[in-house]
Parts: sequence; C-alpha cells; structure tokens
Amino acid sequence: MKIDEHLENLKNGFKKLPGIGSKTADRLAFHLISGKKQEAFDLAETIKNSINSIRKCDVCNMLSANSPCQFCTDQDRQDDLLCVVERTQDIYLLEKINNFKGRYFVLGHLISPIDGIGPREINFPHLESLVSERGVKEMILAINPSSEGESTMSFISEKLQNDEMKITRLATGLPIGGNIEFTTTKTLQNAFDHRQKI
Amino acid sequence: MKIDEHLENLKNGFKKLPGIGSKTADRLAFHLISGKKQEAFDLAETIKNSINSIRKCDVCNMLSANSPCQFCTDQDRQDDLLCVVERTQDIYLLEKINNFKGRYFVLGHLISPIDGIGPREINFPHLESLVSERGVKEMILAINPSSEGESTMSFISEKLQNDEMKITRLATGLPIGGNIEFTTTKTLQNAFDHRQKI
Repeated sequence: MKIDEHLENLKNGFKKLPGIGSKTADRLAFHLISGKKQEAFDLAETIKNSINSIRKCDVCNMLSANSPCQFCTDQDRQDDLLCVVERTQDIYLLEKINNFKGRYFVLGHLISPIDGIGPREINFPHLESLVSERGVKEMILAINPSSEGESTMSFISEKLQNDEMKITRLATGLPIGGNIEFTTTKTLQNAFDHRQKI
Repeated sequence: MKIDEHLENLKNGFKKLPGIGSKTADRLAFHLISGKKQEAFDLAETIKNSINSIRKCDVCNMLSANSPCQFCTDQDRQDDLLCVVERTQDIYLLEKINNFKGRYFVLGHLISPIDGIGPREINFPHLESLVSERGVKEMILAINPSSEGESTMSFISEKLQNDEMKITRLATGLPIGGNIEFTTTKTLQNAFDHRQKI
C-alpha cells in the first residue's frame, strides 16, 4: 500500500524526535491532520518562534531568550557558589528543589574521548575563567554518576582543585523510597561504601 | 522560578498533543532547542505543508492529499465490497493485513447522543447514497466493539438492512495469543457466546 506522501513526511518528522516511536508518530500525525488546521499551524509557529528566540547565555551557556540569562542577572543569587550541570534542562530540574541560591554553568557535554569530546567541547576554558573571575568558594558538580560523568568530574576537580575553593558532587546511594532487593549491585556497593553516620 | 517564556510556549505546544505528558513535552522542547536549528524548522515546515496538502476525499471522507483518494480511484478494487471505518487511520491499520480488495468509507465519528453525535455527524446520508449508487453486495463494519461502536453498528445495519446486501462486522472473542485468565469477564462471556465450530 502506498501511504500518502504528506502523511508519511509528517510521521517521519515526529519519528526523529527522542522517545517517539513509529506508533506514537502515527498517532501524532493523525491527530494533527484530523484536528483543527489552526492548532497544527499554531504548533508549527510555536516551534519556529521558540527556536528563533532561544540562544546561549554568554556567561553560563544556558539556553535562554536573553543573554545574560535570568540566573546570571538575578541580584539575589550568590556569585561565589556555582553549580555545574551538563544540560540546560538540568537547571530546571534543580530549580524545582528550590533551595539553591547560587549561579549555574552549563557544560553542554560530558567528556567522552571516544566521541571526540574533550575539555574544549565541555567549555572548560570558559568555566576556568569564570571560577577565577567570580572568586567561587564552592563549585557543585551536579552531573550524572555515569562513566562520562565520572570522567568529567575527575577532570574538572583535578584541574581546578585549590585551597580557596571547595568542590562537591551530588551524593550517590540508594534512591529515597528505594528497595535493596531491586537495586543494582553497583548502586548497593556504592551505598555501602558511602554509608552515612546516623 | 520563572521559566523562559518561549520554552514554556514550546512545551505547552507539545503538551496539547495526545499522549504527550508534561515530562515528554519537556524532553521534546529541550531536544529542539538544544539541537540544530534547521531540524526544528524542518519539523515546523513539515507540519504546515502536510496540513495544507491534506483534505477529505469527497467520495469516502478519508483524509488524503487527493480527492478522490488513492482507494477510490484504484481500478483493482471492487465497487460492491465496502468497508466502513471510524477514522482514516483505521484504513491504514486494515491495509496492513493486506487482503481486502474492496473500498472504504470513513464515518468520522461514532454515534454518541450524549455528545450530540447523530446520523448526520457520522455522514450517514452520504453512506446511504454511496451504498445504493455502487450496488454494494457486502458492507463490513470494521468498528470498535465499544458502546458507541455497537450503537453505530446497530443504527447502520437497521437502516440499511435489505435482501441485496450482506452486512458484517469484525469478529469478537479472545485475542490471538490471549489468555483466558487475563481476559475480562465481558470478553470471555462474548467468546463463549460466539463459540466457533472446530
């Protein structure tokens, strides 16, 4: 059967998005072609407008409509407390816990020699100068405890280690509400090794 | 925290789509703003172009780039065999089984008095005239066995019942590979009532 070419294009457009498989792409495509035309046009316009308005903050690399971004210009935040993340979306996740009053820095990538991602790709020179300009007292590496994440944290902490700045990372261990029985051996081993005093 | 307005618009645009929750909308929005601009623009263009090119087939109501559509103009299909479906996407599902050589008709809705959907909304007058013009010998109601589906099938078969046309519906029963233990009582009762001779 020859599927309508326009429908096929629409499905393929959605299939390129992360986590959208063939069936979901079908459902989205049919939803748009079956619904009100204006709604579909609105979605297309929203995509264009958002992409056109979003750029990188020159200070912290966060994707934002403004540069410097809302976090870099916020007068209520401490300059000497810096949270380093991989991606812009991580900032939004961290902001939900709502008790961090420092500033952010977005690496954009994690170190991965096999993919050709080294210090320059993670904006390390930029981070280095920011840390010294601001006189950062604590740098929190809020990075995934994956192998790339660990390499990145090792690299940054080795290079920037000095007596004036504390470098910290997110705690690893059992997730709250988790169950020893259903956790991986690595997580359990790690939780055991990092056991906390009660 | 004030979320970037453009990012918020983009997320909300995705959240309006079926099956896209808050987290998926986040992921899609961040994917588009973090990736290559051209990819996002391409998606927006694809949506616009597809919606602009797709219309209803004047003969069968299917959503298609052409009217009459590919199925209504296909010379290899029988005019006297008609398969009636609720939605355009149902045609694509049926075409996958690939052994139907008749034509289709799309109702667009199922009868649902509570939602104000009656015979006119399901294009019944159009179906009625098509059936008589074509001299349809068998009409297959390929409609979900839901309560609205049952009402719709009852309505159509009562109105169009005559000695010259056989009206059939999709079989109901246990799904192939299904398990009596995990099926609903209604399905099991139905499978028992419609037990087939071996």
